[in-house]
Amino acid sequence: MTSHVVSGLEGRLALAETMAREAGAVALDYFKNRETLVVETKRDPQDVVSVADREVEVLIRTRIAEAYPDDGVLGEEYGLDKGRSGFTWAIDPIDGTSPFVNGMPNWCVSIGLIHQGEPVVGVISAPCHDELYAAALGLGARLNGKTLSLDASRTIRNAVTGIGANNHVKPSEVARIVENLLEEGGNFIRNGSGALMLAYVAAGRLVGYYEPYMHAWDCLAGYCLVKEAGGWFLPFPVDGDGLTKGAPVLAAAPGAIDDLKRVARI
Amino acid sequence: MTSHVVSGLEGRLALAETMAREAGAVALDYFKNRETLVVETKRDPQDVVSVADREVEVLIRTRIAEAYPDDGVLGEEYGLDKGRSGFTWAIDPIDGTSPFVNGMPNWCVSIGLIHQGEPVVGVISAPCHDELYAAALGLGARLNGKTLSLDASRTIRNAVTGIGANNHVKPSEVARIVENLLEEGGNFIRNGSGALMLAYVAAGRLVGYYEPYMHAWDCLAGYCLVKEAGGWFLPFPVDGDGLTKGAPVLAAAPGAIDDLKRVARI
Repeated sequence: MTSHVVSGLEGRLALAETMAREAGAVALDYFKNRETLVVETKRDPQDVVSVADREVEVLIRTRIAEAYPDDGVLGEEYGLDKGRSGFTWAIDPIDGTSPFVNGMPNWCVSIGLIHQGEPVVGVISAPCHDELYAAALGLGARLNGKTLSLDASRTIRNAVTGIGANNHVKPSEVARIVENLLEEGGNFIRNGSGALMLAYVAAGRLVGYYEPYMHAWDCLAGYCLVKEAGGWFLPFPVDGDGLTKGAPVLAAAPGAIDDLKRVARI
Repeated sequence: MTSHVVSGLEGRLALAETMAREAGAVALDYFKNRETLVVETKRDPQDVVSVADREVEVLIRTRIAEAYPDDGVLGEEYGLDKGRSGFTWAIDPIDGTSPFVNGMPNWCVSIGLIHQGEPVVGVISAPCHDELYAAALGLGARLNGKTLSLDASRTIRNAVTGIGANNHVKPSEVARIVENLLEEGGNFIRNGSGALMLAYVAAGRLVGYYEPYMHAWDCLAGYCLVKEAGGWFLPFPVDGDGLTKGAPVLAAAPGAIDDLKRVARI
């Protein structure tokens, strides 16, 4: 993976942080009053959405259009609006909608930005934990203002790995990942939000994250965070119609890359 | 499972709530300063402990000894002290030590009490989320004072199931559980704390929890909460030396019992 120098990142990073805080507050208000939410299902009864997801995405789209009207925007709920600036935002208004509607705190707002195929800004807000993760290409990664830097001594054997799955992945494949990781001496969590687990990789709380099929809006913010904290990620295919399709997602601290590639068969 | 009438529960429930708050505050202080903790390993590099676990258990044992000196106490870190009152406390000072030492919020203090082999008090404190779960036999279950009552319409197909595992369980067995649950239309989380996931079952956030091997100190508080919220649990074998050995743990909301028994092959 090669990096390029991008001008105009500071302003967009600042916007992303402002949007993540505002969107996180709106989402948290819905979360605290979730008894009144009407929950709908999408691809199957486990794939849920509510007005909270839609309203938060509309809010973020509005703020982007006000500040950078030529930027493209891809969001989980309303798809892709191509832009003309060379920048495209990738938004998951609520990543972890299943924990959210069921009352569990592990969900987040994920705001990524790509330029020439590369994630260049990544901001993730975890409102239940009052945490804001923010990174931009070449500018480092921070959690609530504190710089994140990964420890190369952590491996899958002395740290925890995050995994994810969804209805695009066969049960036998999920089982294989779990078995391989445990056989290698690893341990796993799955807290219900892939984007949040990627932020945890950047924060050194997890040593890596693997999910066989995710979308760009789920992973690009986390990818930017992990890279700027000193980690590695498997490039996401954003060219052509790749932006709207799913792909494997793998991110890791330096000491876990080879082991997790083997577990993931990548 | 039959229940008996037990006198003296109100006082012990009140003590458990007081202890869980105090212990949770001490543990939270360690969590916020975890960079200074020396982390030791037990059975393998994934099985961790620190001074925080030990200090919190000593604190709880001290409070029990002050109030009910004839009660027995079983704790994860210091084992079983048999009592003479017919009551035995089962304490996990920090359930989810792995999330705790790695900086993730999903850990809790778990305080259970058994009488004639039955869990009669269960209190779980989740300090990062400012949540206190409390139940006693015949007195109901509450979360931060609000009564918990399970919804019989929730099943493994329209709600989320928690799973757990540890180094007592073969990787192939964990994989089998994951595959069976997904094949049945279920979805899983594993947040790193079995006791907290049992509390989530009582709160209706998860529809069930299964772990093939847990200890009494991990599950008895959660079991009491689940039962008092209207759910079911697989009895834990507390007779003889069962109290200090592990056993399968399964708890479920009414609409998930049969499905989860099949997934667990119980």
